Parts: sequence; C-alpha cells; structure tokens
Amino acid sequence: MAKTVNAFGWGAKDTKGFLTPLEFTRRTTGDRDVRFKVLSCGVCHSDLHMIKDHWGFAHYPDDPPGRDRRCRDVFRVQKFKVGDNVGVRVIVDACRKCDQCVNNLENYCPERIDTYNGVEPDGSITYGGYSDIMVANEEFVIRWLDNFPMDKGAPLVCAGITTYSPLRYYGLDKSGLHIGVVGLGGLGHMAVKFLKAFGTKSTEVEATTGTLDGILDCVSVIHSLQGLLDFLKPHEKLVVVGLPEKPLELPIFSFTMGRKMMGGSMIGGLKVMQEMIDFAAKHNILPEVEIISMDYVNTAMERLARGDVKFRFVIDIGKTLKAG
Amino acid sequence: MAKTVNAFGWGAKDTKGFLTPLEFTRRTTGDRDVRFKVLSCGVCHSDLHMIKDHWGFAHYPDDPPGRDRRCRDVFRVQKFKVGDNVGVRVIVDACRKCDQCVNNLENYCPERIDTYNGVEPDGSITYGGYSDIMVANEEFVIRWLDNFPMDKGAPLVCAGITTYSPLRYYGLDKSGLHIGVVGLGGLGHMAVKFLKAFGTKSTEVEATTGTLDGILDCVSVIHSLQGLLDFLKPHEKLVVVGLPEKPLELPIFSFTMGRKMMGGSMIGGLKVMQEMIDFAAKHNILPEVEIISMDYVNTAMERLARGDVKFRFVIDIGKTLKAG
Repeated sequence: MAKTVNAFGWGAKDTKGFLTPLEFTRRTTGDRDVRFKVLSCGVCHSDLHMIKDHWGFAHYPDDPPGRDRRCRDVFRVQKFKVGDNVGVRVIVDACRKCDQCVNNLENYCPERIDTYNGVEPDGSITYGGYSDIMVANEEFVIRWLDNFPMDKGAPLVCAGITTYSPLRYYGLDKSGLHIGVVGLGGLGHMAVKFLKAFGTKSTEVEATTGTLDGILDCVSVIHSLQGLLDFLKPHEKLVVVGLPEKPLELPIFSFTMGRKMMGGSMIGGLKVMQEMIDFAAKHNILPEVEIISMDYVNTAMERLARGDVKFRFVIDIGKTLKAG
Repeated sequence: MAKTVNAFGWGAKDTKGFLTPLEFTRRTTGDRDVRFKVLSCGVCHSDLHMIKDHWGFAHYPDDPPGRDRRCRDVFRVQKFKVGDNVGVRVIVDACRKCDQCVNNLENYCPERIDTYNGVEPDGSITYGGYSDIMVANEEFVIRWLDNFPMDKGAPLVCAGITTYSPLRYYGLDKSGLHIGVVGLGGLGHMAVKFLKAFGTKSTEVEATTGTLDGILDCVSVIHSLQGLLDFLKPHEKLVVVGLPEKPLELPIFSFTMGRKMMGGSMIGGLKVMQEMIDFAAKHNILPEVEIISMDYVNTAMERLARGDVKFRFVIDIGKTLKAG
C-alpha cells in the first residue's frame, strides 16, 4: 500500500528563493488525519525568510505555508466530514502528549511539525500550502465558518492568531489601555483591528516617552528596540512577534531602569485560534488583502521584501494553480 | 549662610578609574535631610563600571557609592535622631511626587538622584560613600537594625535589595520552584541565599534544557543569553539585574519559540528594602564579604574586574579613611 500520494505546488530550490512549479508527494491520510484541497493561501513574511533561508534552517526543495482550505479526505476523524471548509496554521501535527500539547499550547510542542520545512516522523519534509492538496492531523485543523470569506479571511490563521494570542496573553487587551503597534504590515494591521475591538487606544509608534501601556512589535527585519522601550511606561511590556533574520541589540539599561519586560510569542494554540476566529466573525474583522494568482508569487515576494503590500497577499490557489 | 560643608573621600579623576584622596563639598542638611558619618561601604561592580566610565555618562571627579552609616545630623526629620544607625542605597533623593514615588517605586523616579554621579537640584554632583560624611533625604534612608552587623551587612542595601526585589516581583520566590542564578558574584551569591530561604531550589546555571522555572542573570559583563533562555521552561522568565557596558545580543527565536520573557530590575524601593532587611535578619542572611581598608581600594577594583572576590569587598571607612 502506498504511503504517499502525489501532490503539486510551487517551491524554491535554493537560497535564491525563486519559486517554480514542483511535483512532490504527501503522506496518505493516517489515523485522525484530514486531507484537503487548498483554495486560498496567505503569503507571510516568514515565507520570504524561509525560501531565501535567512534563518539558516531551510530544507530545499521547499515551499511556504498555506492556510484556508476545503476538506477532501478524512480518516477515522471526529471533527470533520468530507466537504467541510477548514483552515490550518503553520503547524500540521505535534506530539499530542507533552505539557504544551495537553494545555492547548501545542504551538510550543518541541516535536511540532510545521506546515512547511517541517520534518514528518518518516523523515520526509512538509511542503506547505502553495499546493493543490495538504494533510494535517485533525487536532490541527479548524472548521472555517460558513459565512466567513475564505480568501480575504485566509491571513487570520497566520497574522490573525499571531497577534491576537499575545495581545490576550500579555494583557494588552484591556479596555482603555494605550498600546503601540510597530510595523504596520500583515501582522501589525491585524493587531490594530483587534485592539480597536478590545476597546484599547492603539498608536502606530512614534509615541511620547513613557506613555504606552504596552507595545506589540511586528517588525520582521533588523531594527532598534531602544526607542520602543523608551515609549513604554515603567513596568510595562514589549511583545515581539516578528522574526528578523539576525539577533537584535538588547539595550539592558532600558529594561533595568524602568523594570520593563519583553516577551515573545509564536502563533497560538488551536483553542485560542477558534476563539480568535469567533471574535473576528463577531466584530467583522477581516484582513486587508490583495488577492493574486499563483504565477504572480515571485513578484509578490519582491514587493513584500520592500513592504509594498497593503497588507497581505493571498494566493487564489483554487483558481490559479495549474498542474505542470 | 554656607550651603555646603566640606567633605573628604576617594574618587576617580578620569577614565583610568584610579582612585585617589579627594576634597569636595556636600550640601548642608535642608528640610528632611539626614547627614551621617560613613562607617562601612560596599564595593559594587557598578562602581567599577562608573569610575572607568564604561557606561559613558560619568562625571569626574567622581567616586562610587556608599552604604551603611551612622546618623550624625538631622534637620526637621521624622524618622531619625542623632546616633541612629542608618543605611542608604545608591539613591539619595527623588521628586517624591510622581507615580513611581507615590507607589513606593522611587528607585524608578525619572528625577531620582543617585548616591554618586547624581546631579543635585543646584547642579552639583553627588560624590558617593567612599567618604567621611553623606547627606540624604530621610525617605531614602533606612534604620539599621541594632543587632545587625554594619560591616558584613553593608552589601544588603546594594546586592541584597537588587536581587531580593526582582525575585519577589517576578514571582521567582515560590516554594518548590527551580531557579537558575547566573553570575555567582556579589549579586548572585545573595540571590542564592534568598532563594534558599524562600524554599526554592537554586542552581548556578548550567542546567538541563527546558527545566528552569526562572533565571536571575546577575552578570555585569557581555555574555550570551541564548543558552540561558534554552534552560528555561516555556512561558518562563529571565530576569536581568547586571549592567554590562555594551548591548547584549537578543536571540529573538528563543523568546518567540517558547513564549519566554525577559525583565529588568534596578535596586528596589525603600519599602521593599525594609522588608528585605527584616527578612534577612529573620533568616540570618548576611553577605560573604572581605573587609578592606580604604587604601586597598584600587587593588580591590583590579581583583573585582577579574572576579577575584568571594563575594563582596566592604571598605572599613570608619577606621581606615584618613583625612589628607
């Protein structure tokens, strides 16, 4: 019995990061797996880092993550049936046993399998969502709300959850707070929308020294933290969710002098992701997107690198991915 | 009427940081001020940074901070009478009006006046405690317990409060936690003593990956944070109290991948300082010190720079400071 099925998508073959059509295989659906047809896929700054191997751990051939799909094949699953609309983060599986997994923090499981550039138990590499079909464990799949657009909504399971989860966890969601958002890109513009719905005042930094109750730093390139920390009131927090390709400078005095804190966050657990989707639907929060065709992706990557997108590209995989 | 009184001590005249006898003036006691004779003074790594201007904001002539003294002159004060034993941190005054001051966090007042290299309202520079007399506002002075040694105890108002306050604030004081301490010098060895009294298990890092509930980083020189963050469990905190002379490298992935946090802390408020002194007295916690004479201070600084002290030098000012 074959353990793989044929799949097709676009991927990068080396650190130039130029994406071209690519044939590869997916694992077959095993216990609790869901296979689904990809309809829409957001383009994240992390995709750009990965295809060019800025972080130094890319496996090639490789392609970036996809999210927002239609369920096509299921195997002994409880949550889904054929035809359901579904969404997937940048994680397709994890150990399901560790402290993180049992506490709805499977995004921090040390054995999690990323949607792209991840390593499956059999040693094969995951190929992301710029492709026709995908496979994920059902516990890593959310049901997509029927009345919610799949194309515009796609970045919610990336930029949405990546900003919503830390705003909640670090207490930057309290009505009346004044929160700074740095980097008004894919992540930042979602943060601004959530903060408004939370009843906070949000400011795209610049701010006055010592006036902010918290900052969400969404910048994915090298930048200075010194000035950001100065904008914070004493005893408040800078939360970083961007992933620059090199270490930043840590200005120790800025932390000690005002007893300030910095915290990181990565995506969010599936439970908080469902909460986020419900919250977004209730408050009519959708990303601002530019929907593109598959063969525009290399131009889109160039534009993304220079910040020329308001605010997220979404690839219309369903209509524009053509088999080679 | 003279606004200053003559004083005498040891100070550095340039970035070589070599300390020599120095005559200067102190302000006279004004409203709520306390003047006191210095008996013992701890030697902090910050003193070494300051006399050599590692941080780039030293005023010369300059001398390092002093603590632990006997009250000699008071002026309309409520807390003290002549003859009381007293102790002073590295802060002698602040605005007494801002949010920080009114919330017992005067150590974070933007207008606080440091014990040395501080700027008085009249523009004069404060000269620290390697000297015969000092002046401080009474709200910045603690009463020294009668049964508590003034020489061995001197570093409590520096290394003691600097470690006690953040261990309490950041919740690293809960019985049963496993806390790492980095840098077993003046600060670190006090942290270990407090942690033991709190009922926590403390480890001088190295630790196993992902096992620590918190880390107190007391290192005052450039060092790597990457490994330290790896020792932390997900969602836990690295607290920094050392003040290296240059920015450290900030490994963003280590924060985001485990939703880890970093926080700073600087000294502590007078209220928590009194709590710390009471706690230390109750649990018989005293620093390990090497008591030295004033004219040994330059040798002591050389030894401090290479970590050759277990664990704090204390200058016996009362017996060994000789007027020039």
